[in-house]
Amino acid sequence: MSGDEEAVLAANAAFYAAFDRRDIDAMDAIWARSSLVACVHPGWRPLRGRAEVMASWRAILLGPGAPSIRCAQPSAHACGDTAFVVCVEKLPGGDLVASNFFVREDSAWKLLHHHAGPIARGDEEETPPPDLLN
Amino acid sequence: MSGDEEAVLAANAAFYAAFDRRDIDAMDAIWARSSLVACVHPGWRPLRGRAEVMASWRAILLGPGAPSIRCAQPSAHACGDTAFVVCVEKLPGGDLVASNFFVREDSAWKLLHHHAGPIARGDEEETPPPDLLN
Repeated sequence: MSGDEEAVLAANAAFYAAFDRRDIDAMDAIWARSSLVACVHPGWRPLRGRAEVMASWRAILLGPGAPSIRCAQPSAHACGDTAFVVCVEKLPGGDLVASNFFVREDSAWKLLHHHAGPIARGDEEETPPPDLLN
Repeated sequence: MSGDEEAVLAANAAFYAAFDRRDIDAMDAIWARSSLVACVHPGWRPLRGRAEVMASWRAILLGPGAPSIRCAQPSAHACGDTAFVVCVEKLPGGDLVASNFFVREDSAWKLLHHHAGPIARGDEEETPPPDLLN
């Protein structure tokens, strides 16, 4: 694993630590300052722009229903000054799958886009759930 | 919109055209040659590596249940030699939301990662579906 990939995995871990601690300041620091940021929460329509994205995190982390969360099976894919991590999110209600896109800002990896959604099938199956694809 | 963003949106449109036409050769040409490619189909666990990802597309596009698909509301976010598009996928069974991550390879934008999942709420709601987040 490259140094960049290790650093991206550390940034990814910091994102989930902030989420799990409901630490809105840490969450804010993790997201890129770029206007390009976007976010897809499970089941939500896409949010675009830093203001909209951070408002959603404040609503989630400071709300009464913020779940505990743990990241599993992360893989980092670094590509110059951007990178993405694909991982499984372990929540009390079950697993989600997430894609997290990072950008290097002032030598630090910052989150540019987060997309999380449900996993509806087991590892052993080879075809998608028809109700999700059709 | 920048020239890069226009080109990324064209590559994104080519991806959905290949999907809708069930054109596996066009789909193969759209994906990056890099070993970094990954893919999250709706409800699936993450697929990693070009061989695994392309095998999934052959199964989907050449199978009997391949749905028609149309891309709506795409927004491109270009960042150097990488970019991502967030869009809504219109399928017969309803809408999905997708994040598509592109990389510039030999002056052409190629797909590095695709993540699609369900939308479970309307535009007017402000909180996520509890069953997806908890």
